[in-house]
Amino acid sequence: MKRRIGILTSGGDCPGLNATIRGVARAAYEMFDAEIVGIMDGYRGLIEGEWQEMKRSQFSGILTLGGTILGTSRQPFRNMRVIGEDNVDKVAAMKKHYNEMKLDCLVCLGGNGTHKTANLLSEEGLNVIGLPKTIDNDIYGTDFTFGFHTAVDIATEVIDRIHTTAASHGRTMVIEIMGNKAGWLTLYAGLAGGADVVLLPEIPYDIKEVAKSVEQRAKNKKAFTIIAAAEGAMSKKEAKMKKKEREAFRAESGFNGIANRIAKELTDLVGVEARAVVPGHIQRGGSPSAYDRVLATQFGVHAAQLIAQEEYGVTVALVGNTITHNKLSEIAGVPKLVPADHQMVQVARDMGISFGD
Amino acid sequence: MKRRIGILTSGGDCPGLNATIRGVARAAYEMFDAEIVGIMDGYRGLIEGEWQEMKRSQFSGILTLGGTILGTSRQPFRNMRVIGEDNVDKVAAMKKHYNEMKLDCLVCLGGNGTHKTANLLSEEGLNVIGLPKTIDNDIYGTDFTFGFHTAVDIATEVIDRIHTTAASHGRTMVIEIMGNKAGWLTLYAGLAGGADVVLLPEIPYDIKEVAKSVEQRAKNKKAFTIIAAAEGAMSKKEAKMKKKEREAFRAESGFNGIANRIAKELTDLVGVEARAVVPGHIQRGGSPSAYDRVLATQFGVHAAQLIAQEEYGVTVALVGNTITHNKLSEIAGVPKLVPADHQMVQVARDMGISFGD
Amino acid sequence: MKRRIGILTSGGDCPGLNATIRGVARAAYEMFDAEIVGIMDGYRGLIEGEWQEMKRSQFSGILTLGGTILGTSRQPFRNMRVIGEDNVDKVAAMKKHYNEMKLDCLVCLGGNGTHKTANLLSEEGLNVIGLPKTIDNDIYGTDFTFGFHTAVDIATEVIDRIHTTAASHGRTMVIEIMGNKAGWLTLYAGLAGGADVVLLPEIPYDIKEVAKSVEQRAKNKKAFTIIAAAEGAMSKKEAKMKKKEREAFRAESGFNGIANRIAKELTDLVGVEARAVVPGHIQRGGSPSAYDRVLATQFGVHAAQLIAQEEYGVTVALVGNTITHNKLSEIAGVPKLVPADHQMVQVARDMGISFGD
Amino acid sequence: MKRRIGILTSGGDCPGLNATIRGVARAAYEMFDAEIVGIMDGYRGLIEGEWQEMKRSQFSGILTLGGTILGTSRQPFRNMRVIGEDNVDKVAAMKKHYNEMKLDCLVCLGGNGTHKTANLLSEEGLNVIGLPKTIDNDIYGTDFTFGFHTAVDIATEVIDRIHTTAASHGRTMVIEIMGNKAGWLTLYAGLAGGADVVLLPEIPYDIKEVAKSVEQRAKNKKAFTIIAAAEGAMSKKEAKMKKKEREAFRAESGFNGIANRIAKELTDLVGVEARAVVPGHIQRGGSPSAYDRVLATQFGVHAAQLIAQEEYGVTVALVGNTITHNKLSEIAGVPKLVPADHQMVQVARDMGISFGD
Repeated sequence: MKRRIGILTSGGDCPGLNATIRGVARAAYEMFDAEIVGIMDGYRGLIEGEWQEMKRSQFSGILTLGGTILGTSRQPFRNMRVIGEDNVDKVAAMKKHYNEMKLDCLVCLGGNGTHKTANLLSEEGLNVIGLPKTIDNDIYGTDFTFGFHTAVDIATEVIDRIHTTAASHGRTMVIEIMGNKAGWLTLYAGLAGGADVVLLPEIPYDIKEVAKSVEQRAKNKKAFTIIAAAEGAMSKKEAKMKKKEREAFRAESGFNGIANRIAKELTDLVGVEARAVVPGHIQRGGSPSAYDRVLATQFGVHAAQLIAQEEYGVTVALVGNTITHNKLSEIAGVPKLVPADHQMVQVARDMGISFGD
Repeated sequence: MKRRIGILTSGGDCPGLNATIRGVARAAYEMFDAEIVGIMDGYRGLIEGEWQEMKRSQFSGILTLGGTILGTSRQPFRNMRVIGEDNVDKVAAMKKHYNEMKLDCLVCLGGNGTHKTANLLSEEGLNVIGLPKTIDNDIYGTDFTFGFHTAVDIATEVIDRIHTTAASHGRTMVIEIMGNKAGWLTLYAGLAGGADVVLLPEIPYDIKEVAKSVEQRAKNKKAFTIIAAAEGAMSKKEAKMKKKEREAFRAESGFNGIANRIAKELTDLVGVEARAVVPGHIQRGGSPSAYDRVLATQFGVHAAQLIAQEEYGVTVALVGNTITHNKLSEIAGVPKLVPADHQMVQVARDMGISFGD
Repeated sequence: MKRRIGILTSGGDCPGLNATIRGVARAAYEMFDAEIVGIMDGYRGLIEGEWQEMKRSQFSGILTLGGTILGTSRQPFRNMRVIGEDNVDKVAAMKKHYNEMKLDCLVCLGGNGTHKTANLLSEEGLNVIGLPKTIDNDIYGTDFTFGFHTAVDIATEVIDRIHTTAASHGRTMVIEIMGNKAGWLTLYAGLAGGADVVLLPEIPYDIKEVAKSVEQRAKNKKAFTIIAAAEGAMSKKEAKMKKKEREAFRAESGFNGIANRIAKELTDLVGVEARAVVPGHIQRGGSPSAYDRVLATQFGVHAAQLIAQEEYGVTVALVGNTITHNKLSEIAGVPKLVPADHQMVQVARDMGISFGD
Repeated sequence: MKRRIGILTSGGDCPGLNATIRGVARAAYEMFDAEIVGIMDGYRGLIEGEWQEMKRSQFSGILTLGGTILGTSRQPFRNMRVIGEDNVDKVAAMKKHYNEMKLDCLVCLGGNGTHKTANLLSEEGLNVIGLPKTIDNDIYGTDFTFGFHTAVDIATEVIDRIHTTAASHGRTMVIEIMGNKAGWLTLYAGLAGGADVVLLPEIPYDIKEVAKSVEQRAKNKKAFTIIAAAEGAMSKKEAKMKKKEREAFRAESGFNGIANRIAKELTDLVGVEARAVVPGHIQRGGSPSAYDRVLATQFGVHAAQLIAQEEYGVTVALVGNTITHNKLSEIAGVPKLVPADHQMVQVARDMGISFGD
């Protein structure tokens, strides 16, 4: 059996991309007569026809390597709902290059945006397999995406370091953790880092409730408070607004990130010394953790197994402890958010962590 | 509602013990009127009547702390199958002190041995809750124990470091990873560390097969080979022996650990420069990883939730992504081994990793 | 011989404070009949008379602990040059409490501000010993302060993580590293992290020169650039301004940190995708590195040795590889900046790193 | 100016080899018209004539990479004192290949053995520059070698992890740290890890003195003891023996490493539960620390500066905080050991650390 496989990585940098690529390649070379084509910078390379024939040796030594040897770029379609003329052209270009490369299938590593495009291409008749990558863990149908647990490690280390400063100075520290729509990273890192307050996009907060937690701790002679706030956290008032309305409301008030806002409001409300920390991009870079290397490797090998069986139009997934796959059509465009009654949320509440609600 | 809770930690050191204790305590203080008694050095303190009343502040700042603030010791019963006179005395002493402390329940953190004793005490009428701790991940009924993923991180870092030495010198390195009966730690760390050969207690090896892998790599100009061997790995010949017979066989041959043996045999068989590395106890010490802090915290809080509901005779467990619990009577004494046809084993084989079989 | 020693930690959090405290205490208890008084929150505790008798056991287990077990606070004097009425009162209060505590000497851990106050108290007749703490490494007379190398480790890890994102996306990343006046941290982390451009407060930059480096790399098909910018970096134009003038100039232009400004200017000038990363407080928190534990321990023990010899009015220092001490009067208020012709600067230039000048 | 440079890395793996190579190369390409030849596997490649022309791109992305991209091997001469016929042939082969490669100079990265050979080649008229690499820090004339501080970090982390196990179980743990002749690594890691007893090759121990420390701690209710023992540590009795005599004495007694012996002896003498930990090769592998990346880079660039000035027959060194160089003839074959009255030894003694003497 011979298979010619195109691989691309799309969307933001994420630990485990190379480990996954390596998993696909090693298993493909092992299981069948594989030829692998590396498509450069995600869908950009597919649209513009930039690719290279890969050699087996190029997949060696990359298990621990951060970033992606194939390069990446943002999603090609600004508005997936309206596939306008421009999009039609892009899709046509992708199909044309897919055929020019004489691919048997295309493997796409990426997040929700990547999967929407992957599904589109699948609907257009290409043989597509998705691999769920994102530090946000917000892809429907998989318990975890690769990259997520590494990001939890990094964000937790950030909270650990801030902890000693908060305790030494008796300060309130507000740490802004990545996650615009989904609060998974903040929830996990908040629990792992021993945060006192956790603010998620899915559970709008009331700053007065947050202030209460800060005051309560001050009374108990724990003069410091650690607040883990997802960058997409919002107040109850804001949660009622539409997105554009909220953006306008924020722009007007000189909004400079959720952590800065909360620190300022707490300083005003409670009179404590409150500081914001915004670690930003460091949460998505660098070498994958052991957990993510195992997951990424399993995901990659599963993709090769699917190729061996000519099972396309799916994306790889972790369900419980089993690696499996879902139909692209069923998961594309469906974000996985933190349910307000999630067991971990209840666990956190039961030990006295406030969600500011 | 008022509850008086005894806590003990038993068996080998393991990352996450303090995080779990903190989880129990914080949730207990939050959910009901809790009094907590710390029993020193595991069952030893229960047998000899050594304990202390704990203050709330003692559970602060221990989330990231390695080891156990309560101390630990080996299991009290050498032979659980025959509860002789000595054991009867020990059980009586434990019941006596349980009553003296006026406990509503006893929370036992530990591995398989600890759970056997916990089950015994439960059968004797005490209110017991277990919490599954072990870097071996070999407790039946839970997908993961706390401590396991931290140990995977450490063992993987060991393999990473050995990797550069192996590659620079063109050597074969055999890394001995903890796990006498269960190969989980070796399987995970082997995959995460990019091992070429993985040897597990559950899959007996043939040294000639291992040698073949080393030779194969030398042919492909990859002059180095990384072998991850569980300390309990054994040859096919040994696997057919009874335990005592095997021990005698090994003693006779000057057995000095599995890694040393394999390194020597490969040097003799293949003529390569092969070295053993035995990181030992470092795999079980130190601060828990973010993953284990989250798991340990959830486990601890779940124990407090069980206490609130007066549900005893159980041990906490992770099934899929849900924290739940199993009956002590159903899991005590049942080790969870790596099935030879486990999905991860197949994944590893599909990417060309050899199990030496 | 009996000595009663007061210890305080002052100024910003810094890795190694507890390790140093432990060094002083362990050596003092070992070398003579020591009593140790812990003064709370730096000079605040000395002014307000808040202290506690320390027990030997309180100095156990703190070698690796981040933060300070004694708490800390900002410097008590806003303007050291004019010791106004308020300051006179504060000095009097400090002397009064020093006497009330019946101290033989006072050990002050801190940076430049702390040392100014320590010198002031020494001039007022108190027996004072300083210990040079700061992640900025800007204390005159010592080659290194404790805390500096840990901060280098953290800042380097930040650059490492950003590196993979920059490379994967072909982006220019500007990382803002702590250091308002002194560029040591940026210089070391920049070299360790493989930065292409390093911007220091001591070497004003021309944004056009920075842009040239970015363009040059783009030509060489290295489409990404890493810029390490000290938070106190400034343009040549700004360097000619007085401080207040510069602040006004920046306020007018909507200045939001040096990294954000440079990223924006490069986007405008070169047309690249440039992003700012501001890791902030994480650079000063957490557990000290091995290097800093060794240095902090040596520093602390040396302070005890000085106390044994009743040698006061000095601060401990590292010169070459020897632990020694300098007169407080000679080092207080003298910042140690990066000389523009420092060997490391020349080394960096010789390997093609630009300082933007 | 044009220069054709040969580079080789010789002796055991050590963090920072690639960072140093990169430093030489980047500065050479920047400062003059450089051609670089990579000689494979240390002196083996020079003797056997195996080398490759290097491209500039091969030195990219290797700053953080463990191991050596050039490969390494053991020293070529078993007995340097007697340069027999075989050695003469090897030297002739090296000179021949040096000339065949048309080198202007040869850069040799390595430890004491490497420097002896480098000096030999220099005496034979080749233009040689040494770069001091070793985790042992035992090269005369330089305050630190690159690789040393990374090894200190790793060994310290090992001690940290063992610490929690020792404390939880109330055990005595003996950690064997690399260093056959020089105790620097053990001294630094011992101090950084909070060891109670430090045993160095340079300060022979009396097991009864070690036992006293263990007993003393047990009395003070610190039931655990951490012993950091250099692999080359020896008893006072052994120190009086000649090397061969000592080896025979050890072989007879079933010697299985210093840590195992001490653990056994303490178990017998004091009756405590004592365990040995032998981390081994992990101390020399993996990515270099920030400190070592800075040092290695400075070393490498200095070598290029020397080449620019045609200054040969020297090895690069760190003296105080200055990068400089020494004549090969003055440092070759002179090991740098820990003086028994070294300041750090006194510091350690003053805080109650025992050297077992």
